Amino acid sequence: MSDKLELDPLFNKIDELKPQFIERLRQAVAIPSVSSDESLRPKVVAMSEFLVKELKKLGFHDIQSRELGTQPPPVADPNLQLPPIILGRFGNDAKKKTVLVYGHYDVQPALLEDGWNTPPFELTHDKTKDILYGRGSTDDKGPVIGWLNVIEAHNELKWELPVNLVVCFEGMEESGSLGLEELIGREAKQYFNKVDTVCISDNYWLGTSKPVLTYGLRGCNYYQITVNGPGADLHSGIFGGIIAEPMTDLVKVMSQLVDSAGNILVPGVLDMVAPLTDKENALYTDIDFSVEELNAASGSNTALHQKKEDILKHRWRYPSLSLHGIEGAFYGAGAKTVIPAKVIGKFSIRTVPDIDSHKLDQLVFDYVNKKFAELKSPNTLKVELIHDGNYWVSNPFNEAFTAAAKATEHVWNIKPDFTREGGSIPITLTFEQQLKTDVLLLPMGRGDDGAHSINEKLDISNYINGCKTLGGYLHYYGRG
Amino acid sequence: MSDKLELDPLFNKIDELKPQFIERLRQAVAIPSVSSDESLRPKVVAMSEFLVKELKKLGFHDIQSRELGTQPPPVADPNLQLPPIILGRFGNDAKKKTVLVYGHYDVQPALLEDGWNTPPFELTHDKTKDILYGRGSTDDKGPVIGWLNVIEAHNELKWELPVNLVVCFEGMEESGSLGLEELIGREAKQYFNKVDTVCISDNYWLGTSKPVLTYGLRGCNYYQITVNGPGADLHSGIFGGIIAEPMTDLVKVMSQLVDSAGNILVPGVLDMVAPLTDKENALYTDIDFSVEELNAASGSNTALHQKKEDILKHRWRYPSLSLHGIEGAFYGAGAKTVIPAKVIGKFSIRTVPDIDSHKLDQLVFDYVNKKFAELKSPNTLKVELIHDGNYWVSNPFNEAFTAAAKATEHVWNIKPDFTREGGSIPITLTFEQQLKTDVLLLPMGRGDDGAHSINEKLDISNYINGCKTLGGYLHYYGRG
Repeated sequence: MSDKLELDPLFNKIDELKPQFIERLRQAVAIPSVSSDESLRPKVVAMSEFLVKELKKLGFHDIQSRELGTQPPPVADPNLQLPPIILGRFGNDAKKKTVLVYGHYDVQPALLEDGWNTPPFELTHDKTKDILYGRGSTDDKGPVIGWLNVIEAHNELKWELPVNLVVCFEGMEESGSLGLEELIGREAKQYFNKVDTVCISDNYWLGTSKPVLTYGLRGCNYYQITVNGPGADLHSGIFGGIIAEPMTDLVKVMSQLVDSAGNILVPGVLDMVAPLTDKENALYTDIDFSVEELNAASGSNTALHQKKEDILKHRWRYPSLSLHGIEGAFYGAGAKTVIPAKVIGKFSIRTVPDIDSHKLDQLVFDYVNKKFAELKSPNTLKVELIHDGNYWVSNPFNEAFTAAAKATEHVWNIKPDFTREGGSIPITLTFEQQLKTDVLLLPMGRGDDGAHSINEKLDISNYINGCKTLGGYLHYYGRG
Repeated sequence: MSDKLELDPLFNKIDELKPQFIERLRQAVAIPSVSSDESLRPKVVAMSEFLVKELKKLGFHDIQSRELGTQPPPVADPNLQLPPIILGRFGNDAKKKTVLVYGHYDVQPALLEDGWNTPPFELTHDKTKDILYGRGSTDDKGPVIGWLNVIEAHNELKWELPVNLVVCFEGMEESGSLGLEELIGREAKQYFNKVDTVCISDNYWLGTSKPVLTYGLRGCNYYQITVNGPGADLHSGIFGGIIAEPMTDLVKVMSQLVDSAGNILVPGVLDMVAPLTDKENALYTDIDFSVEELNAASGSNTALHQKKEDILKHRWRYPSLSLHGIEGAFYGAGAKTVIPAKVIGKFSIRTVPDIDSHKLDQLVFDYVNKKFAELKSPNTLKVELIHDGNYWVSNPFNEAFTAAAKATEHVWNIKPDFTREGGSIPITLTFEQQLKTDVLLLPMGRGDDGAHSINEKLDISNYINGCKTLGGYLHYYGRG
């Protein structure tokens, strides 16, 4: 690279501090901050206190632990307090750009009995593979601690940080980010007033060997279809053949939503999808991925596409429709001769540019109602949206992505893949819309880290090179 | 009727004994013999002991309480004993015909909190309506006690019973009749050796005002379709659109089994149905029923047929196919963005003459496999039979039905309707096949008795006239 910055002292210092960085992550993983387990709520709070203490030690200022009040139902304890959102600043120089860093300090549940090879809340260093095992190692304590490590390295070097840093760490990400959206809205013109860009390190490489930067996420519109028939569940011996069965109608309608090749059958949906430009099309060729990786991830040979490019396009830039299940029907093992009186089919559509969410709803409603009308059934049908969350796509050639790409190439000696993800991180869009800034997704871990599974891990190389990438990003962005 | 027997003394005696008969039923209902509740198993046994005591008092002989061993899993108590089957004889005259009477002394669960207006195990006499309320009043303690009442009336009159009576009372009917089929097989040439006909009083009038005799039941073949895809449940954001989803395939296949008008779409099934003869066709016209009664029963206006004759034919003499549900898919309330890895669709076909059960299986398997093959899905599908039970149809003009018809008309002053039922009573076919005799279904209660519901009841007129009908049947059959 022609414009490579001189970052060797920083990277060498990060290498030198590796034992301290592992120790800091060990202390964080040791706190079982499981947000979905009410009995562990004090540990989530303890984790917030640990972060506040670290921020203070590192020289952050304006540190705030924002209380969010009681958790709304359903909860066992009606007085259960939400864990606070931790805010802090490092530097406040009007001449510098300001980067907001988001991360979460809560984790998924984990029990040794689930099948872990090591105690989940003891960070375990496998020295033959150079891997750190532990709940939260990659999701998201590794990246959160990574940002602190970057500051420590600067402090040790007595280097000035090239940007003003604002941190926003929440403790409810694994449980719906309760309270975060409101806080972002409130603080957009307050605490987050001068933020120029947002960086989130809470996703993963696509595969296991090549770093990526993520510039897109699909949205999700979740629907349900309720078919109502008799006043109560009936016996199929007595009523079978003489009354219209809601399950028959529902299954007929659900069968016409998507075909076995994954094509959405609701007319008009594909018409809204942004056309594939030659420029975008060319992006997929270089991405490091294969159908074998997909098959390994799904544990089967049930891929709908065999070509890497087709798989990626269908995961990232085309919508999909999944049938999730039916509420109200018989779902147990064995045989029950029931005619369910009221059944509720659940399905969702993953949305992409330029699908208009409300227009999509209308297309779905019209189509479902039309298909039901064709059945001429005396039952009644209602189709409705349960929730929606918009897709997000950024410009991978903007200032933040360009800086992150330079830093990544500097650290890893390879240009990163620009990827999108099939799932949703709704808070990404909230930051973008409320702060009116770009958002960069800059992952630290690998695609096989097992974020929500047993034996969650973070390779040491990803941890240490990840710290260098985060730090390098601040320099390339700050001087860009 | 030209051949009307002189039964006034018997019927007058039954009227005279009404208080004692209600008291006997009260004692029976007071024992909560719920066979599905392990904690109440001692009460089921107590109920068997009550019957043995009554049989002894009435002069039955060769009374046997047949132990059936421990109940097979699933049970909480691995040593749980099955309640006994009670056998007994009244009369043993080689010159007389022998009638086997089957009934069950166990009941469905019932709690006041379920919505009962009166304590379910206290027989409550509503004197304004002349109705007896209580669990088991109609299903099946009323009829079982009814047979004992008939003997008491004969004893009081010092009348000889016109037939030899054999009783077979079980205590597990509401829980799968465990042990009964084997006992019938073992005793066919032993205890039941000289039986000429079997009478079961364990069903109901079609409606509420006209007595019926029941000569047919549909069978039931229950199937499941398993579609297997990925190795584990997957996230629809990450995998939606790139892998073949088992739910999509299953719903496609299930949607092609039956249409919304109730027509079975599996080819060849209807071809096996016995043609409707003019003689049979004429039977439906006189039956007392209406679409309004069906709508009242289903609690909706979702009838597939409006004409009484069509409703009855589709309930009794045509097959039906019901989709019961899906195991393995999301079934809860709310929204879950899962791609279920393995889903199992459940459906059953109610069978009628002359459907060959094994040929039906083959037609179903071939059709399901063909429809799945058409999907060209990389998933796998398996279709299998879970259980089957054959249909049963008797000759409503045979000796037993003719006798029962005469008795019914004698008591009620109206010719009974000859009905069939849509559901199954598998033990009917077992008796017929093992004992190589006819079986008569001679109901006591009305169609609105609420056998398995709250506020189960038996009208006093049905109880008392039912006793007369059971007794009259023995006389018409014995002298016929």
